[in-house]
Amino acid sequence: MLAEIITIGDEILIGQIVDTNSAWMAKQLNDAGIRVKQISSVSDNREHILTALAEAAERADIILVTGGLGPTKDDITKKTIAEYFNVGMVENQEALNSVLRIFSKYNRPMLEINRMQAQVPANCEVIINKNGTAPGMWFNEDGKIYVSMPGVPFEMMYMMEEEVIPKLIASFKLPVIIHKTILTAGEGESFLAEKIADIEDALPDYIKLAYLPKLGQVRLRLSAYGDNEQLLKSEINQYAAKLIERIGSAVVTDEDVPLEKAILDFMAARNLTLSVAESCTGGYISHLFTQHPGSSKVFFGGAISYSYELKESLLGVNHETLLKFGAVSEETVKEMVAGALKNFKSDYAIAVTGIAGPDGGMPDKPVGTVWIAAASAKKTIAKKFTFGNKRQQNIERSAASALTMLNTLLRDV
Amino acid sequence: MLAEIITIGDEILIGQIVDTNSAWMAKQLNDAGIRVKQISSVSDNREHILTALAEAAERADIILVTGGLGPTKDDITKKTIAEYFNVGMVENQEALNSVLRIFSKYNRPMLEINRMQAQVPANCEVIINKNGTAPGMWFNEDGKIYVSMPGVPFEMMYMMEEEVIPKLIASFKLPVIIHKTILTAGEGESFLAEKIADIEDALPDYIKLAYLPKLGQVRLRLSAYGDNEQLLKSEINQYAAKLIERIGSAVVTDEDVPLEKAILDFMAARNLTLSVAESCTGGYISHLFTQHPGSSKVFFGGAISYSYELKESLLGVNHETLLKFGAVSEETVKEMVAGALKNFKSDYAIAVTGIAGPDGGMPDKPVGTVWIAAASAKKTIAKKFTFGNKRQQNIERSAASALTMLNTLLRDV
Repeated sequence: MLAEIITIGDEILIGQIVDTNSAWMAKQLNDAGIRVKQISSVSDNREHILTALAEAAERADIILVTGGLGPTKDDITKKTIAEYFNVGMVENQEALNSVLRIFSKYNRPMLEINRMQAQVPANCEVIINKNGTAPGMWFNEDGKIYVSMPGVPFEMMYMMEEEVIPKLIASFKLPVIIHKTILTAGEGESFLAEKIADIEDALPDYIKLAYLPKLGQVRLRLSAYGDNEQLLKSEINQYAAKLIERIGSAVVTDEDVPLEKAILDFMAARNLTLSVAESCTGGYISHLFTQHPGSSKVFFGGAISYSYELKESLLGVNHETLLKFGAVSEETVKEMVAGALKNFKSDYAIAVTGIAGPDGGMPDKPVGTVWIAAASAKKTIAKKFTFGNKRQQNIERSAASALTMLNTLLRDV
Repeated sequence: MLAEIITIGDEILIGQIVDTNSAWMAKQLNDAGIRVKQISSVSDNREHILTALAEAAERADIILVTGGLGPTKDDITKKTIAEYFNVGMVENQEALNSVLRIFSKYNRPMLEINRMQAQVPANCEVIINKNGTAPGMWFNEDGKIYVSMPGVPFEMMYMMEEEVIPKLIASFKLPVIIHKTILTAGEGESFLAEKIADIEDALPDYIKLAYLPKLGQVRLRLSAYGDNEQLLKSEINQYAAKLIERIGSAVVTDEDVPLEKAILDFMAARNLTLSVAESCTGGYISHLFTQHPGSSKVFFGGAISYSYELKESLLGVNHETLLKFGAVSEETVKEMVAGALKNFKSDYAIAVTGIAGPDGGMPDKPVGTVWIAAASAKKTIAKKFTFGNKRQQNIERSAASALTMLNTLLRDV
């Protein structure tokens, strides 16, 4: 069963927003055994939407559309879909009730353009939007399913989880797709590929291996396609076990989780705790950890010590150290990590201090110079990195390197 | 001049990664006066890539392709492009030198599959990759430009900025596209639309208005298309001024920046400083601020006080307050924000404490209950929110609400 996702909205095509909806939807569809053939982002333009719908319908059985359902004039998805199906618009009582309910809940006056949101193409089945005023729409035409949803992530996600995915599963007999991902850190893609070449060559043609490199980590993803779920799972696990054995210590986990989640799981299982002292990463490392449910079992918190003063008062870095060696130095990062261990009373700590840029570089410490430390009561490791001149990249690379160092320290027994 | 972006890689279609490249590329193209007609994500599949290239070439003059250039077997972009143009592969000396340079820099043995990366279609002009081993490729065929770049963001970004955009500007006489964005906070899309309906109706047909709602903020984006840059700028500024006057106090800024950047700019211009006390947002607010260059002028840092202990030791929250009212309470958030002002010595502070979920809810404080405070020496505002049951949304909504409250407090004179 093949699906396509069409996201409608000029804001994506001018690069004002990143389309995060599509990846989320693709994951839901894949988990349900529906493969996504293509994701297309098109403009708020009648002809373009009509063409995109027709092209998608030629390739796929399920066409999911997001965006362009707001109450304002630039949102033309609804009437364009009606034109695509050659039907008129009708007011839907259930959708109207939902809009009325939302306005009364927030005690806001309802406007005529909000009432218009209850108008839908005559051939659709309405999907009630519990988090907003634009209804979703389900169409079953010529053996194909079309679903139109709002582009606001919270509204779309609710509809997908509660309505669309269950209805799709009920509508089709779906094939099985099994994925298994191995997370590795510290080895390059080419090196891994050479190391596992013979295992990769021996894979049957219904099992694919993909390499997904990112910031010093490489994910190896096995995907198996077929009908027999048990058999595919057992086969894919056997191949995964071979890969894990061959790759050895570079393997972090065989779960499809980010590195910081693998670290949280590893530490939680051993009742270990963590705190941070973040300077140039400015809260990003803490955010990576705390986005995961249950992180509070491991993660105490820490200091965002952007200023000299906070490095001293929160982490106990010596004023003389800062003056003599500078904020970006081995001495300072070691005092930061020691201060975090001591003041925040955690088993492990990481500290990062660097020049994220674009300003603040010096001849001997150019933008991108970053010192990172990871420590436990027994051992401290500190390392200097020289990244590039792009701020966001320096923050992300610093965080990734800090996680890799902490992971190494944790497994160093 | 129209462009299309094609991203190649199964990892996008199974939802394993979010395609952030396309938005970034689309912004670069738009800034250069090149409109993006469509963005398509397709699989690592020969037929699909061939079809996508042919479809894009029918609609656009410039086709930018990313992904599928790695050294491993699942990366088939290069040979598929050669097939598309019906040419063979040749080894490119410059690309080979670049690969050799990278391996010698990192002191790694070069493998045969890395040498293969210097093989390119015979009709291409090589774009050297300074950050990786896969070369970029520039094709000029039948009056259309095709560019193939790696999917690794850092590698692609460097090529775009240094090579591709300058070459495109040199190759075409480009029309002018002017965007102007007004950021509003605290009013809904429908309310704004009704308030400015007559101004919107009077826009000439070469100026479009779009509403971009997100987390309690709505961006109004005016886009003007034409030839005369000065005239378009002057016109778009006139319409923007009308909108700003009509909307009044809900306008935050007329720059296309996120709310936290508008706050940083406002505070920097007045020499004001900020610190934070983050519990359930876990560093996310700090990250929002510190991702922006120059944030250190305003932002001192603060505490990620995930645990009770750190709320007490870093922020001076009373143990009794935590016991009596709980960590998620008006009393606690007010002590947190007061502690941040006092301990971190900033002019303003924000504090957030809540239950992000999915666990930790209680009958009187369900998951999604969040207390937020913003304070200066003169005034403290605190407010309770009840968001939903999704952790990531609760973190993002808490951060957005904290920013809106700080913005209100800053402008409350």
